[in-house]
Amino acid sequence: MSKIAYIDPIGPEGATPLLIEELKKITGNGDAIEYFHLDRGPLHLEYRYYESVIIPDLLHLIKKLDDNNYDACVIGCFYDPGLYAAREIVKRAVVTAPAESSFSLATLLGHKFSVLVGREKHIPRMMENIQYYGYKERLASFKSLNLGVLDFHADEAKTIGMLKQKAKEAVEVDGAEVIILGCTMQVGFYEELQKYLDVPVIDPVIAAVKYAGYLREMRDRFNWKTSRVKTFEAPPEREIAEWNLSEKYRCL
Amino acid sequence: MSKIAYIDPIGPEGATPLLIEELKKITGNGDAIEYFHLDRGPLHLEYRYYESVIIPDLLHLIKKLDDNNYDACVIGCFYDPGLYAAREIVKRAVVTAPAESSFSLATLLGHKFSVLVGREKHIPRMMENIQYYGYKERLASFKSLNLGVLDFHADEAKTIGMLKQKAKEAVEVDGAEVIILGCTMQVGFYEELQKYLDVPVIDPVIAAVKYAGYLREMRDRFNWKTSRVKTFEAPPEREIAEWNLSEKYRCL
Amino acid sequence: MSKIAYIDPIGPEGATPLLIEELKKITGNGDAIEYFHLDRGPLHLEYRYYESVIIPDLLHLIKKLDDNNYDACVIGCFYDPGLYAAREIVKRAVVTAPAESSFSLATLLGHKFSVLVGREKHIPRMMENIQYYGYKERLASFKSLNLGVLDFHADEAKTIGMLKQKAKEAVEVDGAEVIILGCTMQVGFYEELQKYLDVPVIDPVIAAVKYAGYLREMRDRFNWKTSRVKTFEAPPEREIAEWNLSEKYRCL
Amino acid sequence: MSKIAYIDPIGPEGATPLLIEELKKITGNGDAIEYFHLDRGPLHLEYRYYESVIIPDLLHLIKKLDDNNYDACVIGCFYDPGLYAAREIVKRAVVTAPAESSFSLATLLGHKFSVLVGREKHIPRMMENIQYYGYKERLASFKSLNLGVLDFHADEAKTIGMLKQKAKEAVEVDGAEVIILGCTMQVGFYEELQKYLDVPVIDPVIAAVKYAGYLREMRDRFNWKTSRVKTFEAPPEREIAEWNLSEKYRCL
Amino acid sequence: MSKIAYIDPIGPEGATPLLIEELKKITGNGDAIEYFHLDRGPLHLEYRYYESVIIPDLLHLIKKLDDNNYDACVIGCFYDPGLYAAREIVKRAVVTAPAESSFSLATLLGHKFSVLVGREKHIPRMMENIQYYGYKERLASFKSLNLGVLDFHADEAKTIGMLKQKAKEAVEVDGAEVIILGCTMQVGFYEELQKYLDVPVIDPVIAAVKYAGYLREMRDRFNWKTSRVKTFEAPPEREIAEWNLSEKYRCL
Amino acid sequence: MSKIAYIDPIGPEGATPLLIEELKKITGNGDAIEYFHLDRGPLHLEYRYYESVIIPDLLHLIKKLDDNNYDACVIGCFYDPGLYAAREIVKRAVVTAPAESSFSLATLLGHKFSVLVGREKHIPRMMENIQYYGYKERLASFKSLNLGVLDFHADEAKTIGMLKQKAKEAVEVDGAEVIILGCTMQVGFYEELQKYLDVPVIDPVIAAVKYAGYLREMRDRFNWKTSRVKTFEAPPEREIAEWNLSEKYRCL
Repeated sequence: MSKIAYIDPIGPEGATPLLIEELKKITGNGDAIEYFHLDRGPLHLEYRYYESVIIPDLLHLIKKLDDNNYDACVIGCFYDPGLYAAREIVKRAVVTAPAESSFSLATLLGHKFSVLVGREKHIPRMMENIQYYGYKERLASFKSLNLGVLDFHADEAKTIGMLKQKAKEAVEVDGAEVIILGCTMQVGFYEELQKYLDVPVIDPVIAAVKYAGYLREMRDRFNWKTSRVKTFEAPPEREIAEWNLSEKYRCL
Repeated sequence: MSKIAYIDPIGPEGATPLLIEELKKITGNGDAIEYFHLDRGPLHLEYRYYESVIIPDLLHLIKKLDDNNYDACVIGCFYDPGLYAAREIVKRAVVTAPAESSFSLATLLGHKFSVLVGREKHIPRMMENIQYYGYKERLASFKSLNLGVLDFHADEAKTIGMLKQKAKEAVEVDGAEVIILGCTMQVGFYEELQKYLDVPVIDPVIAAVKYAGYLREMRDRFNWKTSRVKTFEAPPEREIAEWNLSEKYRCL
Repeated sequence: MSKIAYIDPIGPEGATPLLIEELKKITGNGDAIEYFHLDRGPLHLEYRYYESVIIPDLLHLIKKLDDNNYDACVIGCFYDPGLYAAREIVKRAVVTAPAESSFSLATLLGHKFSVLVGREKHIPRMMENIQYYGYKERLASFKSLNLGVLDFHADEAKTIGMLKQKAKEAVEVDGAEVIILGCTMQVGFYEELQKYLDVPVIDPVIAAVKYAGYLREMRDRFNWKTSRVKTFEAPPEREIAEWNLSEKYRCL
Repeated sequence: MSKIAYIDPIGPEGATPLLIEELKKITGNGDAIEYFHLDRGPLHLEYRYYESVIIPDLLHLIKKLDDNNYDACVIGCFYDPGLYAAREIVKRAVVTAPAESSFSLATLLGHKFSVLVGREKHIPRMMENIQYYGYKERLASFKSLNLGVLDFHADEAKTIGMLKQKAKEAVEVDGAEVIILGCTMQVGFYEELQKYLDVPVIDPVIAAVKYAGYLREMRDRFNWKTSRVKTFEAPPEREIAEWNLSEKYRCL
Repeated sequence: MSKIAYIDPIGPEGATPLLIEELKKITGNGDAIEYFHLDRGPLHLEYRYYESVIIPDLLHLIKKLDDNNYDACVIGCFYDPGLYAAREIVKRAVVTAPAESSFSLATLLGHKFSVLVGREKHIPRMMENIQYYGYKERLASFKSLNLGVLDFHADEAKTIGMLKQKAKEAVEVDGAEVIILGCTMQVGFYEELQKYLDVPVIDPVIAAVKYAGYLREMRDRFNWKTSRVKTFEAPPEREIAEWNLSEKYRCL
Repeated sequence: MSKIAYIDPIGPEGATPLLIEELKKITGNGDAIEYFHLDRGPLHLEYRYYESVIIPDLLHLIKKLDDNNYDACVIGCFYDPGLYAAREIVKRAVVTAPAESSFSLATLLGHKFSVLVGREKHIPRMMENIQYYGYKERLASFKSLNLGVLDFHADEAKTIGMLKQKAKEAVEVDGAEVIILGCTMQVGFYEELQKYLDVPVIDPVIAAVKYAGYLREMRDRFNWKTSRVKTFEAPPEREIAEWNLSEKYRCL
């Protein structure tokens, strides 16, 4: 049984019941998923500044959950904030994030994928991840809805309508074979869209949670865990203690 | 419970008890794995010619297993022969293969991976897959052991010694963070090598089998299955019947 | 004098008089071209499955023609099925194929080319070749006519009309300087299209046949023939004989 | 006259007199450079975790300096931490960083450059920037000295010796035409190395400070300042105020 | 104080008062800019042939200016004709050119840039430079005005109108964050366009002149000058003298 | 019958009897090859400056030969100087050059090729062509002999010895399947090297001459000639006449 922490990397005011409901539906195989948010923070992470300020708290929470034997931590934002830093500092926990998980899954379901994003602003930030993860050859396109992250559920029928139109363009014009919903706040839309399009539509929250369970199994059965050389070499505990980093950066 | 078929895409004389033993160890979560080989074929697929001749039988076997409600078929060769064609023709079964699965898993465990192959001859063929799948940015290097596929188990101590030396070079000189064993016949070596190197060493058979179970779960729970537009659009059944292809190409 | 075999890699029912007429016109310099088809097979190769099943027969025919002193074999399908495998097994014959030949020629006539294909389905398969051959930087675009391979000659005036429109877009919008007809069944259209556009329009059958003669000359005069290291290293004759592959895979 | 802030993004214990001396030498054209460090922090940023924790303080300091009419802020670490986020939030100040500035300058002095880094660990993090900035075609190689950031000045003669050897290899074997010192703590070494090699050796601190002055001039004379669409679109001040971010994340 | 030569690489008939006026405005920091044209030549360089014929005279003029202690030479055409050859032969002078300078500056102001060119014909030539300099990842698009180089100032209001429309498309559709005017003859338009768009609009003449001054400072203060190994290794003076090249190729 | 002009783009003093002999051997199929050199020029083109000065005379000679009904002009230097400009201005003649022809042929004989060059200096210039032509994926490596262009025939036994050693490394270490001699002055060496290595070794002079004949045939039989849109759009004859370019740039 996996103990999985889903972390919404935003402040308490941003916590969404919708997402908590969704997570309940994903559990299975005896996996337990708990929902966490940060003790402080903005309500969305559309800007690099917002993303930057929450990362230290996110990392410290992941560190604590790792110390408390959580099997996996899921970072709940499609920018994958702090993913690589988190993998540096955990001892045992698997860390996953929506974009990496969705891209990885998409490549196994079709040759090219498109990502439906809220606003144009999100595209360069996500493109940075696409390039770094190496999925550029598999990307068909980004399509923007012109909707802020907090607006997806303001008028769900309208959002679904826009998703359908943009996804159809992605398939018919851009050559997409799989659609990825490019924001965790697009929760609840994948099934209807999938039925409409008849191509796989990936919900990034589900993708990240399921990969967490999968990687946990890989770790426990085959000892395949995050590599500790180069990219994810851990910072020395001695330095962290000597410099008193956890205390210095604890949340006010 | 998944019913998974592992297909060794070679003739009956090539079937290896070693691999059959290995597969038994991988089962879990109630998954059942059955071992298949082809009714005719070469003993290894190092050449494109060998790979080409076995693909029709492989596809027809996969078609039959799909018709018989196998949940997943695993193509047991690191060239991933026929993978994309198989995805075209199955109705329901998941199809996975060692290279795609290993590359995909490796990118979740480290930023760069190296692949240990038997002979120089294998590298351009595998590089073709690396490029097509889009993993070129994540590849650190190929390292060749100068051993034919049938020789890996002739002197296992010697093979392990060579694997250790080449993998160490991959990590220390080429920047690899994860090692992939680039042949299903390197079965049985990953654990010792992993212990020696202290970086993840992926056994491609296990990777492909576990991804099969994982993708089966994705299909059954979220309806995320192989996309049917463009790359994997299925050939019309009417044509296949009219042209009598299954009969025309049945095994002698 | 070259003895060139043009192989239509489809069953007897698919043999087209049109193509046979065309081939007659291409001969010259004393080259003799013979038309072959396979003894069984689908009527077109739009799907990877169809392509996969015909490859063994195609390879065995090429092997036989090579043994019978044909100077060159031309594989008559724009997917270039079996091209690299064929080069592995021939002893002396040159092997060419329409896509490789057309791309190569196009780069000598203009800096960017576009390919006119039948259906969207064909694009990812051809893109795979473009990437593997390394011509991605020279590709301006693919344009699809929305016509199956067997429909090009159903209404030739309509086909020509569509070719003109798509080719014009390729030149005016996508930056193409050369047009490639992306299917051997677009036979008979290049001249009218070329006159209309005033840019080179490559017929892939002619390109492949002419390259066959050209490479034959290179082989005979300068001893420049298919390299036998790595990619095209030949499978050992001893293995092929011992495993009885030609007999096992002979056509029913 | 420009008022330039050089920010050493580490804690007070890490402030180096050496660097302060160096900065004094760079001033000119009436530019004034002030040295800043953070109020808390690790002593070096070799790990992503260290880099992540300092970014919020760094951004808030840059915000404050921008409010106080500093013309430019220079981020003093070769990982360029927070560079793009800082450009999002400043109103008027130019923001530069060592890696971006050094790569940019290097491409104007030679066609290929190599970067001399402390440890292997640094390479994947810097490669991420090389890729994102788009300089991969201009990179000849990374060369590692096997020295931690804090060790460069432990035995300067030894460090210089190692720099000479690695830089020579970069030029003679890897094809480098320009050398970049890949850490701000390699301060003081460029001149001797440059004399020895007779190719340009870029000190990243100088490059970043000089680009700051240069971009300041571009801004003031031609109104060429950081673009405010997409990548550097600023977060809404209303949100920042409403969510009370500056207060919530102020330094303890 | 820098002594900068701006060279319009065209014949005397092509010299434009407009450009001479513009240059006067750019001087500053005590820099002196002088305007030069060639003694013979076409009136524009839209074709490779025109570009090719002027390069020897351009190089010999640069050589003479270098001998006469000019600090920098600016090559006044957005194709950057002869830039790399000029860097080979100068002893001391900095050499800059509009495209290289504009691309370099643009990447410091935004993540993606678009280039507004006169005619479609210019795009492949400029794309050659984009690729060679390595800026392909940063290019959003080329947009053509369908105007010859000599027509930009025929009806300035119309030109401005077209620039506005194309630049708007570049930002809104292609993802550009910075606009580059892709011809030195688009002189005089950047300010109005910049005001209209509210994104940086780079005038390539200014960019090249300012980079000349900047690189001159780098050379004089830090000894950072054009690398003399590989790409810019100078031809031996002995050979040039022995073969009497300057005399043989002097202008009639 | 083709009338082919081979142009050695150097001054009269550089003309080599060796090459003239070689050309005689290549003729065939009734093709006539004539050897030309320029009326003035350096003795080799290793530097961009040398290459730049000869291009106008080269273009004017090609123009004259085109006017005099030569079927094809071959530019005799592996830098392919002026190739694209020449294609702009010819009316009817085919223009080929050694590098483009050799790369094109090599990709039809093996998947990866290496180029043996004289000096390190040549590599960045040739790499520029490799990138521009789009052959980067097919390049295994450049290998330098450390020999100037004029030294290849000083001690032929020594040169052959070095060629053998470097080519062997290219095949065994770098993965080359085909070897290209990267200088027209390596004339006379390909056969011995080819026999030694048993992989194709391309002589670039032969490749360029044979492609000239081949493209001439394509032109005459199928009307496939250099595209006249975009890259090779011809400069208006009216402008050339009006500006009196041929007279202004005629050789002294």
